[in-house]
Amino acid sequence: MLTEIAQKTRLAAQQLASLSATAKNAAIEAIAASLEHYAAEIVAANAIDCQAAEGEIAPALYARLKLDATKLKGAIVGVRDVGKLADPVGRIQIHREIDAGLIMRRVSCPVGVLGVIFEARPDAVIQIASLAIKSGNGVILKGGREAIESCTVLVRAIKAGLAQSEVDPDAIQLLTTRAETSELLKLDRYVDLIIPRGSNEFVKYVRDNTRIPVLGHADGICHLYIDREADFEKAIEIAIDAKTQYPAACNAIETLLIDRAIAGDFLPIIIDKLQAHGVEIRLSEFGHQILGNELHLTVDLAIATDWATEYSDLIIAIQIVPDLEAAIAHINTYGSRHTDSIVTENANTAKVFSDRVDAANVFHNCSTRFSDGFRYGFGAEVGISTQKMPPRGPVGLEGLVTYKYQLSGDGHIAATYTGENAKPFTHRDI
Amino acid sequence: MLTEIAQKTRLAAQQLASLSATAKNAAIEAIAASLEHYAAEIVAANAIDCQAAEGEIAPALYARLKLDATKLKGAIVGVRDVGKLADPVGRIQIHREIDAGLIMRRVSCPVGVLGVIFEARPDAVIQIASLAIKSGNGVILKGGREAIESCTVLVRAIKAGLAQSEVDPDAIQLLTTRAETSELLKLDRYVDLIIPRGSNEFVKYVRDNTRIPVLGHADGICHLYIDREADFEKAIEIAIDAKTQYPAACNAIETLLIDRAIAGDFLPIIIDKLQAHGVEIRLSEFGHQILGNELHLTVDLAIATDWATEYSDLIIAIQIVPDLEAAIAHINTYGSRHTDSIVTENANTAKVFSDRVDAANVFHNCSTRFSDGFRYGFGAEVGISTQKMPPRGPVGLEGLVTYKYQLSGDGHIAATYTGENAKPFTHRDI
Repeated sequence: MLTEIAQKTRLAAQQLASLSATAKNAAIEAIAASLEHYAAEIVAANAIDCQAAEGEIAPALYARLKLDATKLKGAIVGVRDVGKLADPVGRIQIHREIDAGLIMRRVSCPVGVLGVIFEARPDAVIQIASLAIKSGNGVILKGGREAIESCTVLVRAIKAGLAQSEVDPDAIQLLTTRAETSELLKLDRYVDLIIPRGSNEFVKYVRDNTRIPVLGHADGICHLYIDREADFEKAIEIAIDAKTQYPAACNAIETLLIDRAIAGDFLPIIIDKLQAHGVEIRLSEFGHQILGNELHLTVDLAIATDWATEYSDLIIAIQIVPDLEAAIAHINTYGSRHTDSIVTENANTAKVFSDRVDAANVFHNCSTRFSDGFRYGFGAEVGISTQKMPPRGPVGLEGLVTYKYQLSGDGHIAATYTGENAKPFTHRDI
Repeated sequence: MLTEIAQKTRLAAQQLASLSATAKNAAIEAIAASLEHYAAEIVAANAIDCQAAEGEIAPALYARLKLDATKLKGAIVGVRDVGKLADPVGRIQIHREIDAGLIMRRVSCPVGVLGVIFEARPDAVIQIASLAIKSGNGVILKGGREAIESCTVLVRAIKAGLAQSEVDPDAIQLLTTRAETSELLKLDRYVDLIIPRGSNEFVKYVRDNTRIPVLGHADGICHLYIDREADFEKAIEIAIDAKTQYPAACNAIETLLIDRAIAGDFLPIIIDKLQAHGVEIRLSEFGHQILGNELHLTVDLAIATDWATEYSDLIIAIQIVPDLEAAIAHINTYGSRHTDSIVTENANTAKVFSDRVDAANVFHNCSTRFSDGFRYGFGAEVGISTQKMPPRGPVGLEGLVTYKYQLSGDGHIAATYTGENAKPFTHRDI
C-alpha cells in the first residue's frame, strides 16, 4: 500500500519536475493562501495534540509541538519567503560544444521523491512542503505521533492549496504510523533521498536501515581550539557564545582544546567565566595539574568517554594539547566532522588548521554557532550534512536538486570519433 | 592490520591535502619517471601474471591483464596528462561577506582516502594513483588476483617515485587478498569513498556491504526511443552505433523502443540493418504482429526479463510503445538511470523526454555511446555514477573532491545576531 502511495508521489513528482518557476511559485502561494483559509482548523487540531501531550513530553518538545495562531502566521510568512528564493532547477552548470552540432549541457534538476521523517513539530510540515515544491520534488512526510492531528490537517490544507495550482496534490503525502517508517526506508526504487530529523540514535538507525542516500547528521561534537597566539578576550567571548548561546544546538561546542603553552594563564580565566555562565566543567587530568589544587572541588575530572560525548547541555569537556598538530589530531579522532573553530592571531596557524581539520565547517576567530543555512545566507535550511561527499555542511534548496547531462546532436554517432580516422572533439565551452 | 594501513594512509592524505598544485604535479612527474625507470621490471612481472593466466581467463580479460612495453608507455603518457589537468582542489565556490569582517568561503578540498577495487587490469593502478595524487587523496588499491605480480611492482615503482617528492609514499597502498576487500568495506572511519570497478554483481555486493559512499554503477540498461517524428536515417545510424560500436560498454543500448505510429514502416528496416550487423533480436509480441508472419523465423520473442537485462553483447530487445509517455514510463521502470536517448525532429518532444526521463544522461538525436568522461571533455574519468545525488554521470577529477565551509572572523559571536537587537547579516557576495 505504501508502494502505491510512493508510485503516485513519483508520478506527481515527474510532472512537477518540468514545471516552470512561475508555476511552482503560484503553487507555493496557493499553499500559503490555503493555510490561511484553514488556520482555525489547524490551530484547533494542534490544541488536541497539545492537550494529549501535556505532561507526557518534555517542555522543550511541547514548545515545538505547539502551533498557535501567531506561530502559524510566522510559518506562512516562511512559505512565501521560499517562494521568493531563486529557482534551483534548470540552472545550466556546464554548456559545452563536443563537436559541431553536438552540444552538452549539465542542468540542475530535482532529486525526485524525498522521504522526510521528523519529530512532533508541525511547523516542519509547512517548511518542508514549500521547500519540496520549490525544488520540484515530491515528498513523503512522516511526523511524530504526538503531532498526528496537526499534521493531518496541515497536509489536507496543503493538498487543497495544490489542487488550485498546476501541481498534482499527490506530490505531497503524509504517513502516520511507525511501521510505515521502516517500510519507507526500503523503498529505494521510489524514494531518492531520506532526510531524518531527530535524535542521534534515530539518525543512526535510519542510516543503518536504508540503501537510500541520507542527508543529515547524527552527532554534533564541535570543538574550539585556543592556540598559543590567541587573543584571550576573543577566545573567552567565542567560547562562552559557542557553549552557552544555545547549548542544545548541534553547532554548540562540546570540547574546548587549550594549547599547553598558554594553559597556565588561560585555564583559570575561562573556567571562571564558564562557571559564571552555569557551565559544568570536565577537565583532563593534566588540566587539573596545571590548575593546582585549590580549584579541584568545583571542576570534575574528564574521563575518556567525555571526548566523544555530545552533551547538548551546559557541560563542557576541556583538554590541554601540546600543540596545533595535537589539537588537529584530537578533532579528527573525536569530532563528528560538523564544525570546529580555532582562535589565533597567526594566519598561518589558522590556515593549517583549516586545511587539516576534517569537518564540513572550519572556522577561525568566530563562534561555531554560525554554521547554519540562514546565517550563511542560503535562505532556507534543509539540514546540516556531515558526510564527506556533497551536499556537505548547511544545506539549502541546493541540496534538494541534482543534475543531469543533456546531449543534443543531429544524428551524431560515436564511431565517427573512434579508430584510425577519428574526428577530434572540439570541447569548447559556450 | 588493515586498520593500521588505513590510518597511515589517512595521515599521509591529510598532509597531501594541503600541498600546492606545483608540489602535486612534481609528484606526478616523479611517478612517471619512476615508472619509466622500473619499466623492464614491470613488464617482466606482468609476463609472469600473463603466463599464469593464459587459458585460465577469457580472452578479453587476458587482453586487459597484459601490460607490454608499448601499453606501459601509453599509460605513462596518461600520468603526465593528469599532471596537466587543472587542480580540482582549492577552488573557491562561494565567497561571501556574512557581516563586516566575517567572511565565508566554500572551498573545494580532497575527499580523504579512496578505496578502489578493480579487476585484473594493471594499467588501472597507474591511472588511479595519478588521479588520486592530483586530487589530493590517499588511495588504498585492491587489484584482481591475476594481476598480483604486476600490481606489486607497479605500486613499488609509484611509491619510489613519491619518495622523491613531497608526497608521503604511504598515500598509496596495495591490498592483495580477497579477505582484505571485505575488511576494507568496513573501514568507514578511515575510508571516505569506495570506487568498485567490475561486474554488476560485484558492484551490487559492494553497495550492500558497506556504509561508505560508493561511486559507480551496477547496471547499464540504456534505451533508444524512436519517436513518430524521427528522421529514419538518423534513427538507423544511431541505433546501429549505440548497439554495435562496442556492445560490452555500459553505455551501449539494450532496448530499442519504437513509437507504434511508425512501427509498421520502421521495424522491418531496422531489423534488417541490425541483423546485417550480426545483432540477435528479441521482439515483443505486438512487434511480431506488426511484422506479420514472414520474418518470425529469424526474430525471437522477447519475454518479460528481457526488458531488465543488460546483454553486454550483440543482442537487442525491441518494444513497441503507444506514445512518448509510454516510452518514458518504460525507461523509468526498467532503465538503470544511466543513458537514454530519443530520436525525433520535434524539439518539444525532445524536451519532454529530457525533462521526464530519470537518468544521469539524457540524449537527443545522438548515440548513447557519448556518455563518457573523455568524450565530455573531463580529461580523465573515474567512473560513471548512476546515483541520483552528485556526483552523477561521467565523473572526472571533480568527483574526487568535496568542499568545506571556511568562516573567518575577528571575534564574531552568534549572540550579536540574535534576539531583540539582533544585528542584520549583510550576505554580500564578494
